[in-house]
Amino acid sequence: MIMLTDKEIVERLVKIGIKVLDDLKKGENPALNIPLRSLRNVYYDENTGLIKLKDSFQERYYFNIGQSKKFMQTILIADRIKWLVEQNKTLSIRQLFYTLKHTIPGFKENTFDSQDESDPIIEDIEVLINVLRENLNLFASSKGVLAGPMTIIDSGDEIDISKLGSAGYGVPGIVEPDVIKFKDCSADYVLVVEKDAVWARLNEDKYWKKNNCLLLTGKGQPSRAERRILRRLHNELKLPVYVFTDMDPWGYYIYSVYKQGSINLAYFSEKSGVPNAKFLGFKMSDVKNFEMPQDSFIKMGDQDYKRLKELSSYAWFQTKEWQKELKELKKFGNKIEQDALVMKGIEFAAKEYLPKKIENKDWI
Amino acid sequence: MIMLTDKEIVERLVKIGIKVLDDLKKGENPALNIPLRSLRNVYYDENTGLIKLKDSFQERYYFNIGQSKKFMQTILIADRIKWLVEQNKTLSIRQLFYTLKHTIPGFKENTFDSQDESDPIIEDIEVLINVLRENLNLFASSKGVLAGPMTIIDSGDEIDISKLGSAGYGVPGIVEPDVIKFKDCSADYVLVVEKDAVWARLNEDKYWKKNNCLLLTGKGQPSRAERRILRRLHNELKLPVYVFTDMDPWGYYIYSVYKQGSINLAYFSEKSGVPNAKFLGFKMSDVKNFEMPQDSFIKMGDQDYKRLKELSSYAWFQTKEWQKELKELKKFGNKIEQDALVMKGIEFAAKEYLPKKIENKDWI
Repeated sequence: MIMLTDKEIVERLVKIGIKVLDDLKKGENPALNIPLRSLRNVYYDENTGLIKLKDSFQERYYFNIGQSKKFMQTILIADRIKWLVEQNKTLSIRQLFYTLKHTIPGFKENTFDSQDESDPIIEDIEVLINVLRENLNLFASSKGVLAGPMTIIDSGDEIDISKLGSAGYGVPGIVEPDVIKFKDCSADYVLVVEKDAVWARLNEDKYWKKNNCLLLTGKGQPSRAERRILRRLHNELKLPVYVFTDMDPWGYYIYSVYKQGSINLAYFSEKSGVPNAKFLGFKMSDVKNFEMPQDSFIKMGDQDYKRLKELSSYAWFQTKEWQKELKELKKFGNKIEQDALVMKGIEFAAKEYLPKKIENKDWI
Repeated sequence: MIMLTDKEIVERLVKIGIKVLDDLKKGENPALNIPLRSLRNVYYDENTGLIKLKDSFQERYYFNIGQSKKFMQTILIADRIKWLVEQNKTLSIRQLFYTLKHTIPGFKENTFDSQDESDPIIEDIEVLINVLRENLNLFASSKGVLAGPMTIIDSGDEIDISKLGSAGYGVPGIVEPDVIKFKDCSADYVLVVEKDAVWARLNEDKYWKKNNCLLLTGKGQPSRAERRILRRLHNELKLPVYVFTDMDPWGYYIYSVYKQGSINLAYFSEKSGVPNAKFLGFKMSDVKNFEMPQDSFIKMGDQDYKRLKELSSYAWFQTKEWQKELKELKKFGNKIEQDALVMKGIEFAAKEYLPKKIENKDWI
């Protein structure tokens, strides 16, 4: 990904305003040409292994009763982002909303009534100028944690993330190279685990130390920051990525978000996906291979079957291996959570399951 | 608080089992005498300023059709906790559930069907042997972040939490003195902020550096770990505590949880409350004093009024100052979120609001 300088970002934003002004001067109806972000403008690119945006656009007009307010909001947000980038300050997307919410003088109308109005427009601007929100100094909450043999420079502070005890390195909301730099790293791979508690268990067992790897969790469905840092670890440090989730449609999908990206943020996938990521498990063949006790099984419910059906239809799950896995899970009719491995012994995941899986390349 | 050694904890657990065995040998019906944790067994202790448990108990009998299963579950969990403490390993409360869930041989009945059954029994055992879950090596997810001029020793790693960049120190699930030690700290006070985004904003503005304090957030309603670490910072390092939340009933309640404790975990309050904590704001007098723009007001809804009424009735909100605050808020009819301060300028909270409030002792 080409990183733009703040100056270049400001130029792109200013260009939007100048075009609007020019249109007005020429007596034309100013329009913004915004790439569509809905499902019908999304496709799976087999060459790159990523979910991408197609090239449909929507025109957003100034002189259009249905679009005029949104047009104004777009310009307001573009203007405020310009101000933010120039000041070199960051704001949460909620705070951005607050800085812009006001009553239009002489009217009873508010510029914005709720954050539901401003968040999608931030995404419009990301695709409009092809710059990630994170480079526009805007962040949302993150929640992930990372540990391993690595030194990170975060806002000028040098942090040895092998020495952060039980806490680990809390992945901040923005992990772009201007804020977060990778200094030294001797890890052989990155292990991503779905859940916080599994991360804590493996961290306590010093899994990453014994296996010389990085250990990351996004605490369930990852936010943008965990996806971005994983991508950077993979691309910049050439580290293989293994993902370990629950054996259920939700866990499989979390894996696919790290790998191919998500439907909702297709334009972000290109900048956050790791197409080479491997799915370690938990998977159907593990049930027998590791002799999982019947007491670890949880009956699948209607929602699980529904989600499983959706997954089976996604283009990025159309490989032979995945179709087999999904079919077998449906037939099996039970989920297994990754936490359940403690039933086999408290250090079973760290000492048996994970090392064997990786050694035997037992992944999808 | 008196810290028990692992040996003493094991002794208390073993005592439970021995009493049950003795009762059985004597031909008596074994019973566990468990302190009640419901609202009617909770009171506000004005002397200590903490929400506490009264002394009602419930008997849990072995030979009682309605209680027999729960009796068995209690013994199973006590046994498994003993095993955990002896091994010196930690588990999440979810993982504990998994290690115990199984089908009883010869029956179709499971020991536990869901975690909703095991979590309350963990709390029963906490009150039964008067030891915190955290000392029983059990944890739930935490989410808080801390930064400031301080060195923490976490599981043997020495961590300078003034050098953790934008990430800060992620408060781990267990912050008891055997895992987390406070080494050096030159801070003058602890500022607790309700929200993540406000924490990030203040961290970026180096608020804690300029004002020589610790900056903590529990990201909304705090989990046990943030409450425990705050209590330890206050008690062990004698640091004053200031809390900064939204101006709404939910923010006020969050403040009261840090200060007096919560109804649900009254027995935990004694070990986590900070009765001297001050409420900095956001509060009604700030609206005028800081000339908050009308656009920062959010109309209160039915749920807000309902919660406000509940708060007004709690014993720990019966001070003159609080009753005045709550009445004024009701009359005002608007909430103000702490994020809204950015409307007054991006660094307004860090450079104007907070320093002035603390200098003028403008708190409740």
